[in-house]
This record gives sequence, C-alpha cells and structure tokens, in this order.
Amino acid sequence: MSEFRLDPVSGQRVIIAENRASRPHEFQTSPVRIANESCPFCAGNEHETPTAVATYPQTSPAGADADWQVRVVPNKYPAVQLDEPAATSECGMFHTSSGAGLHEVIIESPQHHVSFSQLGDEQAALVMVTYRDRILAHAKGGRVNYVQIFKNCGPAAGATLEHVHSQLIGLPDTPLVVASELENCRRKAHGDCLFFRMLAEESAAELRIVTQTENFVAFCPFASRFAFETWILPRRHASDFQALDDNSCVELAAFLKTVICRLEDALQRPAYNYSLHTAPLDAPRLGSYHWHIKAFPRRDQVAGFELATGYFINPTPPELAAAVLRNSRGDSSSKNGAEVPAGKTG
Amino acid sequence: MSEFRLDPVSGQRVIIAENRASRPHEFQTSPVRIANESCPFCAGNEHETPTAVATYPQTSPAGADADWQVRVVPNKYPAVQLDEPAATSECGMFHTSSGAGLHEVIIESPQHHVSFSQLGDEQAALVMVTYRDRILAHAKGGRVNYVQIFKNCGPAAGATLEHVHSQLIGLPDTPLVVASELENCRRKAHGDCLFFRMLAEESAAELRIVTQTENFVAFCPFASRFAFETWILPRRHASDFQALDDNSCVELAAFLKTVICRLEDALQRPAYNYSLHTAPLDAPRLGSYHWHIKAFPRRDQVAGFELATGYFINPTPPELAAAVLRNSRGDSSSKNGAEVPAGKTG
Repeated sequence: MSEFRLDPVSGQRVIIAENRASRPHEFQTSPVRIANESCPFCAGNEHETPTAVATYPQTSPAGADADWQVRVVPNKYPAVQLDEPAATSECGMFHTSSGAGLHEVIIESPQHHVSFSQLGDEQAALVMVTYRDRILAHAKGGRVNYVQIFKNCGPAAGATLEHVHSQLIGLPDTPLVVASELENCRRKAHGDCLFFRMLAEESAAELRIVTQTENFVAFCPFASRFAFETWILPRRHASDFQALDDNSCVELAAFLKTVICRLEDALQRPAYNYSLHTAPLDAPRLGSYHWHIKAFPRRDQVAGFELATGYFINPTPPELAAAVLRNSRGDSSSKNGAEVPAGKTG
Repeated sequence: MSEFRLDPVSGQRVIIAENRASRPHEFQTSPVRIANESCPFCAGNEHETPTAVATYPQTSPAGADADWQVRVVPNKYPAVQLDEPAATSECGMFHTSSGAGLHEVIIESPQHHVSFSQLGDEQAALVMVTYRDRILAHAKGGRVNYVQIFKNCGPAAGATLEHVHSQLIGLPDTPLVVASELENCRRKAHGDCLFFRMLAEESAAELRIVTQTENFVAFCPFASRFAFETWILPRRHASDFQALDDNSCVELAAFLKTVICRLEDALQRPAYNYSLHTAPLDAPRLGSYHWHIKAFPRRDQVAGFELATGYFINPTPPELAAAVLRNSRGDSSSKNGAEVPAGKTG
C-alpha cells in the first residue's frame, strides 16, 4: 500500500511507501547484501524474487527461470503498484492519491557482477535493449505516462543489493521537476532543441567533452551538480529512447561502458548512479527535448544545504573533471579480475 | 574562487567551488576527522581555524580565543566568498556569475561534543542566540539577501568534522527552490499564512504531532520526504527568525533538543540534518510565510530516482513516525556519558 502525497509548500509530491520497510517497528537500515550464495539476483536463486515479467534472450519464454542473460522482475518491495485501488482524497490542505504505478528490477547478468563496466559487450547491449523494450511495453500498456529508469551502484549510491541491476519506476504523471525541465526546454528552444544547441556549444568549446563517437557524445555539463557528473547524448535529435534501433543499442552500451570505466579509473571505483531521461509517454516526439543519460559518482553526501535550498555545491569544475576523464582508461582491462570475455559469460 | 552557474535545462543554479577540494588532483573524499587532539574546533586549537567573526558570551571581544562558549569563524574552504570580484558572463546558453556570498561555521561548544542533544540548556540557547544574531548582522551588512543555516551531524549527513557545529551560507539571491516555496505560500495563503493553517490542521488532526509547548509545535509533515522528518514551528506567526527574543531562544533551544533526543532515542543516534528556514532578508515580515526548522535523520541514501525526478520515496508514514517519536525519550538522560551539566561545561 503506497500513496502520493502533495507537499502544499513545495508543490512537490512524495511517495509514502510503507511496504518498503520490512516491518513497521524495525527502523534500522538493512546492511547491503553482498554474499553470493544468498544473492536473490544470482542465477539459481530465481525463487527468491517475484516471477519474471521478461527475460532475455527472448528465445526463453517470459518468466523462464533458466538460460536467461537479463531478467526483469517486479520489485519485491515496490514504491508504487498498479493494483492500488484508484482513490484520491483531499483533507483540508492535504492531498493524497493512490500510489498507482510500476516498479521493476532489471537484473543485468546471471552472474554476481557489481558494476555495469564488468559486463561483456553483448551483455551490456542486451541491457540497453531491455531498457528500450520495457519502455515500449509500458507505452503500449497505457497505464503509466512517465517512465524513469535508474541505477544505484554501491551503498553510497543507495544500492541495498550488490548484484548489477537497474530499476524502472512508471508513474501516472510526469514529476514536477521533469515537467519543469520540459517546459524550460520548450520555452528556450526557439524552434530548435535545447539539448541539440547544448551539444553544438559543447562540441565547439571542447573543454568539457569526455569522449565521443560518430553517434554519441559524453561531456561534463557546464552546471554539474556532482563532481565528475557526465551526460551522454545521441548526436541525432530524438526525444524518445524507445525509438533506438538494435545497432544503436549495441553502440550505446559500449559507449556507456567506456564512460563508467573512465569514472571508475579516475576515482578508484566509486559508488555511482545513472538515470535515463526520455520524453513522457504521453508526449512523444518532442522537438525541444532530447533523451539523455546522466551518470554521477557519489563521492560527497547530499547534505543539509542541498536539501534545504536545492542548490548543489560542486568542488570540481566540470572542465577539470572532463580533462581527468579524458586521460582515464576507457576500458576495463586494468581492473583486477573484473574483465569478462565479451558475450560469453555476461 | 567559486562561481554560480545556471543549468539551462533545470533553471537551477549550482555553486562550482573549486577551493573546497583540497588539491585539484586529489579526488578522494577525506575521512571524517574525529580524534579530539586534532580537532580544529576544540578549545585550544583556535589557530587551526580562521579568526573568529563573533564569539559568545559577548563579554569576550570578538575574535577572542579564550573563554568562548560559541565561536563563529569563516569556513576555511568556503563555497562562496564576499571578496569574489563581481562578474557575470554569458557564453551562448551558459550563464555564470561570481560566487559572492558568505560561508561561516558556528562552533557550538568548546568541548568535543558531537550532537546538539549533548549540549546543556544554556549552551543550546546560546546557539539559537548566535543563529539570530548572525542573521541580524548579515541583514545589517546588506551584502546578502538570503541566509541558510544548516547542520550536518554524522558522516551520512555530510559532516566532515565530528565536533558539534552548524554552517551559515549567505547568498546574493534567494534560491529558486525557496523562491518557488515562497510563491506557493503567497498564492495559496488566501489572506492567511499557509504554515499557520497547516499548524491548525495538524493540531486538529493530532496524529502527526510529536510534541508541543505553549509556543512551539513539532510534527512529522504530511508529505515527509524523509522517514521521521520533523518540522518545528512557532505557534505565533513570524516570518523572520531574527525577530526572536532572548526568552524564546531559550525555549526554542530546549524544544529542539527534545526533538533531536527523540530522534536519537527512536533510531539509535542516526546521522541527521536540520535546516532553519526564514524569510529572505529583502522580504521581511511576510504575511504568508512562517519561519521553521526541518530536522531529518539520514537513514536512507538520496538515490538515483530521487536525484532524477525530485520525487522522494519515504518508507515510513509520518503518522507512524510521529507515534514512535511521541513514545521516545525527549531528554538525554538515557545516553551514556552524553549528559552535560546545564550551562557549566557547555
């Protein structure tokens, strides 16, 4: 049972998700589970998670518990659920609506890897295909209008399980912060895409570019909230991630891997998050928006000042971060025991 | 050297504060310094911090290095500084202005206490007086228009030094998030104060009230972002914290102490933040705003979803949190060795 509540002061919603706490009277944060044999995401332990809603490669029937390389399961402790009874209530200034939505876990390997950078190239590509296909499925399902895919890697990034995975939360409405970003883009686009202009200016300036290929660019954004924050954008305009073709998924996976390898090489394998930003499902093919991935290592805590004001303090200028990342290793060959034969064991 | 940079997508500013990193090529997060003898905030180690801008009790001359109970010093690694040369630049879509502002540290005891709850009553009152007087001083100084006071207690709350302290950051402009809250309050006030109505509704509902006295109320807000988040409000309308009289400082200090003791008793002394929210200096005596303190334990990381969407997921309903806090100890008598004779050693 969860619900959306509207803060009358900030105008923002929060999700009150009681079922995510194991028991109401236990308020201790659970330690991160790392032991391989007890890991619910490892192959062989499928019974410890809800039944899969999709598995890859797609030759396996959905829900198959064998021979999967990527497995998508409902979150066991969901923040939101589709079967919440639809209800809203307004009591004085307090507004509540039922926490209807989707919360899935994308298990990115049958093996107990930790970071996306440890996946083989084919395995990593399968993860991008899964992201795309899940968004497509939910767009077709028509029950949510906004999909947020994100990864928490490492306890300092909010992970409670070590095994390499991402999460997907589908919401009935676009979050206020995202809606405000979309509106900013629309207002400032002047007939063009704001991200497209940003790419052009970053490419001309060069000093914040981390790496680039024919189709993708990675740079540390001008107003980075976090030290070493890196954005990945496709060069061609596209507001919807789910329009990506298979070849682009392969290329993007390798590109994302090299960005994460550089962060891990420069910062001694930090905890990190990344999030995939794509247009709301009910507003496809936006001329003023561009899908993108934001990756950021978690070196410093989000502290009192940031939480009070929304202002972030970043001690590392993005120009310096980009220079460091350009000189870092973009492959995993330097990582002890972390290298995985591409497309073999995943 | 620091600067404000405007993110063209979010419309939010960030502070790029290069001087906060000890050396540009060292990107490791520094461990929290806890050893008493090396603590720069302990009495006797005053030479390790910049010269004080104020000390209490006020019988000591400002900057005096002896006999202080509370000591205010400029932050050694400031996020913002008043002596930044005034400059703005606009390069394509990228807007920068110089990081002019104030960054002070309020050292709340000459002794190596850790939490505000360990301070004696007189000492705690002196901290509230210091908050008030610093805001008054900066209002008079006329060089900043918004003052944010906040506390990071514990590494998980962003503290890098253990010794009990708060920080003050003064900014030339009101942060976008705060400005938007003020505008929400103005718009929804309907001739009354939004916080005042919230207090009335919370008092009538009772179920989220933690504790209350004749002049102050503590409650877990309806749309709490964090589990066990607790807000403290004065009952009488006042938008400006700096209008607080000495007696109210004494009463508020004891009230804040009891709230933090309850959080520490319920959650086994968690890391916590609190932030003091007061009207901008250039908009005093607002009819639609009410100064308040937000306190929140840091049990869960701010993770990928929150940072991508601005949506917070809170696993503990505030009604449950308030019930737990009502039944927790509101004094420090259960804490081993933590009790301090009031007004004696601080």
